[in-house]
Amino acid sequence: MLENLYLGIDIGGTLIKVAIVNSKGVIFEESVISTDVNAKPADILKSIINIAKKFKDYSKIKSIGVGIAGDVCFGTGVVRFSPNLKKWKNVKVRDILTSLTQKKVYVDNDANTASIGAFWLDAKGKSTDLVCITLGTGVGGGLIFDKKLYRGISGTAGEVGHITIDAYGKKCNCGNRGCIETFVGAKHLSKFVQDYLKDNNSKMIDKLTNKNYKLITPRLLTQAAKKGDKVSKEIWKIVGQKLGIFLSIIINFANPDTVVLCGGISHAKEYFMKYVVKEIQTRAFKSATKACKIIVSEATHNLGVVGAAMLSRQ
Amino acid sequence: MLENLYLGIDIGGTLIKVAIVNSKGVIFEESVISTDVNAKPADILKSIINIAKKFKDYSKIKSIGVGIAGDVCFGTGVVRFSPNLKKWKNVKVRDILTSLTQKKVYVDNDANTASIGAFWLDAKGKSTDLVCITLGTGVGGGLIFDKKLYRGISGTAGEVGHITIDAYGKKCNCGNRGCIETFVGAKHLSKFVQDYLKDNNSKMIDKLTNKNYKLITPRLLTQAAKKGDKVSKEIWKIVGQKLGIFLSIIINFANPDTVVLCGGISHAKEYFMKYVVKEIQTRAFKSATKACKIIVSEATHNLGVVGAAMLSRQ
Repeated sequence: MLENLYLGIDIGGTLIKVAIVNSKGVIFEESVISTDVNAKPADILKSIINIAKKFKDYSKIKSIGVGIAGDVCFGTGVVRFSPNLKKWKNVKVRDILTSLTQKKVYVDNDANTASIGAFWLDAKGKSTDLVCITLGTGVGGGLIFDKKLYRGISGTAGEVGHITIDAYGKKCNCGNRGCIETFVGAKHLSKFVQDYLKDNNSKMIDKLTNKNYKLITPRLLTQAAKKGDKVSKEIWKIVGQKLGIFLSIIINFANPDTVVLCGGISHAKEYFMKYVVKEIQTRAFKSATKACKIIVSEATHNLGVVGAAMLSRQ
Repeated sequence: MLENLYLGIDIGGTLIKVAIVNSKGVIFEESVISTDVNAKPADILKSIINIAKKFKDYSKIKSIGVGIAGDVCFGTGVVRFSPNLKKWKNVKVRDILTSLTQKKVYVDNDANTASIGAFWLDAKGKSTDLVCITLGTGVGGGLIFDKKLYRGISGTAGEVGHITIDAYGKKCNCGNRGCIETFVGAKHLSKFVQDYLKDNNSKMIDKLTNKNYKLITPRLLTQAAKKGDKVSKEIWKIVGQKLGIFLSIIINFANPDTVVLCGGISHAKEYFMKYVVKEIQTRAFKSATKACKIIVSEATHNLGVVGAAMLSRQ
């Protein structure tokens, strides 16, 4: 029997990943190109399919899935708006790709495709209820309930970044206050560290940034922590505590078997994870905590493309 | 064609409700008895079935559902523990009722049965994703996702009462801090009002309690507000604001089409609902807010028994 294969397309602001994936989420062939943010979306989609058609197993592809950041209508396959791809406004991605390939096409936002990717790559397809949290510039997420993506009634379910952990805290872009994103989203975190350094001195950060604190990123804080910087380690401790408060809410509410943390700041796991765990053990329901594995994704860079491919396997 | 009917049994610490319900959640016949907390559980279950057997449509019953407060194993139908019914420890409710009736029996905790009841009575069976919140001594809840009860991996999903809205706030019974229950659960609320009255004087509350503030309950605060008491109205405003913060988290996370508030304090809806709505409009995602109806249950007292009956309709 021929194995069914799926084409995944992960369109980011910097890179586009294209891959052929099997029914277990394993990548068979892949290709990465730079995103030309000035090109017409239809032209980009055409180049992507040209690349895909060169894959030796292209003929075995059953269906195609696409993940892209922004406001995506899953039902119609239209990308209404993408924050990092200004030209992508009301682009009928599904229709364009269908006419180029004559295959079934599914389009979703990147937090949903990342969640499906985490379900296959990190949980090996063995989870029932999984919450995926993407820690990047913002904080996003997706929910897999009963082995299926849970979208909610208007498609915005899983907006975990806007769970409040301090109701009267800092104003968030979303209009609310004290969302977890205002603590651990990369931009907010960088700002927090700039303030923190007014009262706390770090020679390491001074050296790495040449005292231009605007250059502080989660990556730089990880780098500093790896070199033994106490201030950076303290920052990661605070991040871990906030994430622990946040995850306790999720564990009590959704009682998942797996939580997967992915995205940029997950690389600092050795500096924040112990505080996450400690906070959850103090705060969340014992039985729900016991039933829940917390994983830092080992496959962050492939979640999008594999999840997109697996999205199409419905 | 004969209509399928279902028997619902709602076992509370004060009353037991038994009813025959049709496939739309409409009560055909019902009976209420007082709970004898000292009687043996098996004897109570026998009396319940004796009552049910006198219903004229008993022979048409297809299956039986039971709701009871506490730690209930849905899989085995065992009531492991019930806080208000001390004799109910490891009671094999499903097995006892099956042997008394030779019918299929399903047993669940009362927050889950209330949610199913809200789905049928308040949402008329027309919701897809519904969150039910029971506001009583504690704050409980249940989740209906994709028209089915969502239990999570170990059966504790929907523990909304322990969503934190103030991470460093008052200690909650669950071990966490600042859970919504510490603001709006009846016991905590009463304690809050006792403190509030140290700085705020209410002649109405003084009169209604004879200055014994331990008598303050949500019901008394509603009574005082109805008589125009400003302090009680201010308390309900605070309750509304806290509920609004809490519901914003739920709306952003689960994107339900319906939230149903039920239980004791829901009777004060005219005093707190406007603040709930205002807070949600400021805090939650616009599209998710627009897609979500917030209902104060019109059928609080029947949710349990109807939900129990409908639980068995699987």
